[in-house]
Amino acid sequence: MKAVILTIGNEILKGKTVNTNMAHIGQVLTYAGHEVFRALIVGDNPDEISWGIRTSLESGDIIVTTGGLGPTFDDMTVESISRALGLETEIDQEELEYLKERYIGRGIELTEERLKMVRLPVGSRAIHNPVGAAPGVILKHGGKTIIILPGVPGEMKAILDIALPEIKTAERVYYEETFPLEGIMESSLAPLTERIMKKWNGQVYIKSHPQRSEVDNPSLNVEVSSWGSDLTKAKKIVASVGKEIRESYMDYIGK
Amino acid sequence: MKAVILTIGNEILKGKTVNTNMAHIGQVLTYAGHEVFRALIVGDNPDEISWGIRTSLESGDIIVTTGGLGPTFDDMTVESISRALGLETEIDQEELEYLKERYIGRGIELTEERLKMVRLPVGSRAIHNPVGAAPGVILKHGGKTIIILPGVPGEMKAILDIALPEIKTAERVYYEETFPLEGIMESSLAPLTERIMKKWNGQVYIKSHPQRSEVDNPSLNVEVSSWGSDLTKAKKIVASVGKEIRESYMDYIGK
Repeated sequence: MKAVILTIGNEILKGKTVNTNMAHIGQVLTYAGHEVFRALIVGDNPDEISWGIRTSLESGDIIVTTGGLGPTFDDMTVESISRALGLETEIDQEELEYLKERYIGRGIELTEERLKMVRLPVGSRAIHNPVGAAPGVILKHGGKTIIILPGVPGEMKAILDIALPEIKTAERVYYEETFPLEGIMESSLAPLTERIMKKWNGQVYIKSHPQRSEVDNPSLNVEVSSWGSDLTKAKKIVASVGKEIRESYMDYIGK
Repeated sequence: MKAVILTIGNEILKGKTVNTNMAHIGQVLTYAGHEVFRALIVGDNPDEISWGIRTSLESGDIIVTTGGLGPTFDDMTVESISRALGLETEIDQEELEYLKERYIGRGIELTEERLKMVRLPVGSRAIHNPVGAAPGVILKHGGKTIIILPGVPGEMKAILDIALPEIKTAERVYYEETFPLEGIMESSLAPLTERIMKKWNGQVYIKSHPQRSEVDNPSLNVEVSSWGSDLTKAKKIVASVGKEIRESYMDYIGK
């Protein structure tokens, strides 16, 4: 299943905030058996959010969004996604009770800004936010699953944890290991990794990440990953490929 | 001028690597006077890179890409972008000299994998990489500017520094300050910021970033930013708005 991550927030585009949310969601989706196919980042702008969800749905079976769920004027994710998909919104009665408890229970008024957080697309389901006020949302649409999460990292993570059983696939597992190699250039390793990948015929993916610059003092992290239906088998394949890389490396270094 | 950032790399999608490159490029572009309008992340896949560059060109005047410039089989950014734009590629003779010095000069063979790094789109210009092997590329296409950077952060930053005079606009400046506020909920600040933004009529943008969860122990970072033609004026506006927010906050806290 292909997954697309849609991040919403001007602060990400301006580089004020590093998009650690996307990395977290990417990891969770990968280990849940999905191929994270693309990611999009758009600003706090209804047209852009609409573009983002429509474009995500073109290639993704699962879409996870983060950002734009709070009480301020520029939190407009749910409204924009609903409009893009032609869905009405309505107050979620169960979440309204939580909100009442949270605010009115402490003598704080339930203003329009606060109420907005529990106004969800018709046909969706709230995922209660155990940390903050705005709930997450699960929406099934045209055979696809859209999960809408807040942008505050602690809240995003907590809600994604709760939603995980809904997105976990039993059919596909992912396993990855990183093998550090000193004193070999990426351009020297390139033909070796290509040969090994061909030999394993699509069962492994090898990617080298240079840690320092080439030539003078090269250092690589070699990432070996495998998708499969069985974790034990995937681990074995990765270990075996790691050994092959290590041997090719020793041959190379010995030269 | 609208800018779009295109990041290329499976490791970003899988969340193995946090996309700090995008944040750096976003900051540089913003302070160079551009509105970073969108960002896209695609995998190491020629079709996806082609999709990424075509989609970026739909909305961006300046496109900055990062990733996929090295010597391995999955470094295919330049080739894929060239193909998407219908451009032939050719060996850059000046960069070839650098490459010869770098490799042959140290007794290392100039393999096909290494040569690939200096095969650039016809009509483009290399930006020499002072740190690593693969040069960056500047390509003007249909009135737009495409800047192609490596993914290794040190190399990406060094090349972007060199390219900066090419993309800096004199007409537009950006200024931003962050004002921390303790003990006020985002949902309480929301109507105040909206009122102030309306009053300033598009000259400022205010965004609150909750640092902790609402209600129990709220803490906000309030970002105030301004675009303008004059840095002194932008700073004055931001300071003045910061003062207004502070005063509204003191009124609120006093209540």
